[in-house]
Amino acid sequence: MLLPDWLKNYKKDQLGGDLIAGIIVAVVLVPQSMAYGLLAGLPPEVALYSSVLPLLLYALFGSSRALAVGPVGLMSLMTGATLVELEISNINDMVSTAHTLALLVGLILITMRFAKLGAVTNFLSHPVISGFVSASAIIIALSQLKHMLGVDIPRGLPVHDTLYYLTTQFSQSDLITSMLAVISLLLLWCFKVPVVTLLERNNLPLGLVQFVSKSGPLAAVAISTFSVSYWQLNELQQVSIIGNIPAGLPSLIVPNLDPTLIKQLLPNALLIALIGYLESVSIAKSMANQKRQKINSDKELLGLGAANIASAVSGGYPVAGGFGRSMVNFSSGANTPLASVITAGLVGLTLLSLTPLFFFLPKAALGAIIVMAVIPLIDLHTLKHAWDYDKTDAAAMMVTFFTVLIVDVETGIVAGMVLSIGLYLHRSSQPHIAIVGRVDNTEHYRNIDRHQVRTDEHILALRVDENLYFANTNYLEDTIMQLVADNKKINHVVLICSSISVIDSSALKSLDDILYGLEKAGLTLSLAEIKGPVMDKLRHTAFLQKVGLDNVFLSTHQAIQHLQKLS
Amino acid sequence: MLLPDWLKNYKKDQLGGDLIAGIIVAVVLVPQSMAYGLLAGLPPEVALYSSVLPLLLYALFGSSRALAVGPVGLMSLMTGATLVELEISNINDMVSTAHTLALLVGLILITMRFAKLGAVTNFLSHPVISGFVSASAIIIALSQLKHMLGVDIPRGLPVHDTLYYLTTQFSQSDLITSMLAVISLLLLWCFKVPVVTLLERNNLPLGLVQFVSKSGPLAAVAISTFSVSYWQLNELQQVSIIGNIPAGLPSLIVPNLDPTLIKQLLPNALLIALIGYLESVSIAKSMANQKRQKINSDKELLGLGAANIASAVSGGYPVAGGFGRSMVNFSSGANTPLASVITAGLVGLTLLSLTPLFFFLPKAALGAIIVMAVIPLIDLHTLKHAWDYDKTDAAAMMVTFFTVLIVDVETGIVAGMVLSIGLYLHRSSQPHIAIVGRVDNTEHYRNIDRHQVRTDEHILALRVDENLYFANTNYLEDTIMQLVADNKKINHVVLICSSISVIDSSALKSLDDILYGLEKAGLTLSLAEIKGPVMDKLRHTAFLQKVGLDNVFLSTHQAIQHLQKLS
Repeated sequence: MLLPDWLKNYKKDQLGGDLIAGIIVAVVLVPQSMAYGLLAGLPPEVALYSSVLPLLLYALFGSSRALAVGPVGLMSLMTGATLVELEISNINDMVSTAHTLALLVGLILITMRFAKLGAVTNFLSHPVISGFVSASAIIIALSQLKHMLGVDIPRGLPVHDTLYYLTTQFSQSDLITSMLAVISLLLLWCFKVPVVTLLERNNLPLGLVQFVSKSGPLAAVAISTFSVSYWQLNELQQVSIIGNIPAGLPSLIVPNLDPTLIKQLLPNALLIALIGYLESVSIAKSMANQKRQKINSDKELLGLGAANIASAVSGGYPVAGGFGRSMVNFSSGANTPLASVITAGLVGLTLLSLTPLFFFLPKAALGAIIVMAVIPLIDLHTLKHAWDYDKTDAAAMMVTFFTVLIVDVETGIVAGMVLSIGLYLHRSSQPHIAIVGRVDNTEHYRNIDRHQVRTDEHILALRVDENLYFANTNYLEDTIMQLVADNKKINHVVLICSSISVIDSSALKSLDDILYGLEKAGLTLSLAEIKGPVMDKLRHTAFLQKVGLDNVFLSTHQAIQHLQKLS
Repeated sequence: MLLPDWLKNYKKDQLGGDLIAGIIVAVVLVPQSMAYGLLAGLPPEVALYSSVLPLLLYALFGSSRALAVGPVGLMSLMTGATLVELEISNINDMVSTAHTLALLVGLILITMRFAKLGAVTNFLSHPVISGFVSASAIIIALSQLKHMLGVDIPRGLPVHDTLYYLTTQFSQSDLITSMLAVISLLLLWCFKVPVVTLLERNNLPLGLVQFVSKSGPLAAVAISTFSVSYWQLNELQQVSIIGNIPAGLPSLIVPNLDPTLIKQLLPNALLIALIGYLESVSIAKSMANQKRQKINSDKELLGLGAANIASAVSGGYPVAGGFGRSMVNFSSGANTPLASVITAGLVGLTLLSLTPLFFFLPKAALGAIIVMAVIPLIDLHTLKHAWDYDKTDAAAMMVTFFTVLIVDVETGIVAGMVLSIGLYLHRSSQPHIAIVGRVDNTEHYRNIDRHQVRTDEHILALRVDENLYFANTNYLEDTIMQLVADNKKINHVVLICSSISVIDSSALKSLDDILYGLEKAGLTLSLAEIKGPVMDKLRHTAFLQKVGLDNVFLSTHQAIQHLQKLS
């Protein structure tokens, strides 16, 4: 049977938690979805369609028990940017392109699953992701100001152009719209901070507190919708509203498979897939770790891939696991993916019968919901930490941040990735090499610059704190040969290999050159503390035969003792 | 004063060696230069001009005492390929473009000196270089067959096309030309193998042996030239000859500085500069190491840069340090760069008065000289070693080799470089993580898979054999969390950091996540054997405060002892 493990072994006592979590997440998801649809420039029903079938498919194939899949901020931003890049303005074309994009994202994720390429995301470092997320959050927040002020600004502009438009059009902003936005912001803030503090003081259960803190959007939607409909603000005051959402469940469609379109979408689809996977898997892991459960990367790729394909064929756009919703799900007591199945059912019910309720929903309120959701993503904390801890990481973060803001999301991620790999390689090409000496009368040998140690003037004992590979062999060779050339008293060189787990062919060649140079100059080379796996590979090499097994020692102390007897 | 150190401190007893070496290198250099000129598709005088002023400038600015600068095979090949790529067929344009190329190479090298970019060459691994050199040697050898057979094949074709032309035109090859080539090859081989063996048996000095082994080209030139002129083979039998070489020293010129041309040449100039620098510096280092002398990379960049600029303004083409000639120079007893100054003087004398001697020199003999020079560069030895020692290195080598052969030199080098960096990152993204246990009653802890050790079922002690950075933190987190999820008896995790020299911000974040996950699941995390520089950085982090200094141990043994008391 194809049934997932959680369903086969379902226990009655898991139902309560799943039911409550499913309902709570649905309450959070409906307004959030519509807001993210607005962010992507797509009609609200597209976002709602993305919140039904994808959840069921993830529940079947995914491995996380609490991940809440659906429309998320970053992917909505990237989808919107892709549509602007392709210069699609007709709304029907935009929607159909979004379906195709979701299909591509799904297929890429499944390909990554079978080509074992999930590890590609490892090369996105934390500072690069943080820089990318912070810059995206700023872009997202700025993009919503037009809805909140009631002014008209073209989509998809770089940040400086958007800011320029905002300053020139600020004077034309609509007072009622702006007031609705401010009221929504205040409501959202109240639910996040003072209300939560109040509930926490009264020691209410964590799930309830989380639910209330996340139901701000629902309150903002309800109050602003009521205001518009009561005072007819949409007709009398030109407040922009959501309008008619077609009632009924999504119908199955075949996405547009035009090869030219697919070729244009592919690079962006690749990045959207990577970012979606990365976001989902990191949320899923964080929750699983807390319950000592396992996350299977392969299943995650499959689950998310299936969810995106389901979104594509049911009229949706790219989806992923959302951070906020997943946390609500987790802390409301979701035990299994049945919670998500319940959520999907409730969103389906909303589509069937509740869409008329959202007719008067003002876009300003949705804009406010998005702004409040993304502000915490602006991550100055990580920048400060990176700056204090490691300047190269801070540099990679800032380059990513500013490139995303000034150029675009894709260029920013790629620039950050290339820079962080380059900086890492640069660092490992100049490894830490310590000259060591003996600590008192112990058998311990430590860095002469950090400890009070004794050395023998005829023996140079070096510890290399890095694997030896092509990028750092020259540095090693130069360092040894310079030390030997500078101090003519040295007769013996001891290389301490305790930190070396890999010696590649280039390094082996270089060690051979070092040995040749030392021997020609009348010096000996000894090796100490070679690790097991390294020794396994070295054993059959000409290099080790030339060094001689007599000159390979288990410990640094043995090597030094032996050499002192010789000199 | 600008005088170099070797000149300021010149000692009388150094003169003998320098004089002899200078003369011997000149004898080798003159025919070799002309052959390399032919390889680049340039007139012989261009190659001879590259053998005068560049040598003087390198003597002034370089740091190697024995490096013999001038035209070399790889750079001649790459120069020729560049001219073909730009579709320049007029011989005057080819010569003037070669000057501009030399100027760019010189300027790039000097820029690298001041931008401290010499380390870029570190990222060319030994297998990639070896694959590139082997493929280039095959291309060079094949390109000379047309001169040796007397057939007409267009320049700069990919190897398979050249082979196709050769097979179709083989029947039209010229008998006398082919005979001259075969005789030259035989002569060259005799000087390399039987004559040298004979001299070595008689215990003659190494310098003399080296000289004789390298004077094969001179003999081949002399005998083939005499044959052509005596039997008038050029007129009666259509043997292709060098013809008129304008007499006189090079005159100073200003290279063509057309911006369009410079832009077209720049990518190739960059690679030629990198390869030239790499070849020269590795030869120079190998010689310096044997005499316990130092090579200064900065001075090498300056010396080679100045030599190339000198070549550009004196009618030459890109130059570098040649392997064969430098070895002759070194083993003939060159003590200082004065040897090169003497060589340059003798090449100058040749240009002034000996060029008529080369009028009847057949191109077939020069082709034979090149073929004999490049065959030893086909490096199957390194391929076999890489294959036995490290399959990923062998893969990088073969990709470079075949890409150079089938596509072109530039693509081959770049592909090899990207592949070897990718493979290295992939390897370091899945570091070796050993679970360790106690060896008998010692304080030593070793891999449970390699040694008979005792472990405690409540304690998981892990040693990570790699720096922790963004590409492998996920792997570490997954490994720890999987082990903990699979074995519910574990209460304590000990991370042994003896091989960790770097923890970047991503890894720090990941360690924080691991700690959070472990604590939520009711486990403790301890750290052992943190290195000094790593501890310096960790000391002020929130992570270490959360772990608590009580849970940081100097040795694994202390950590285990402490935890055993707790459980």
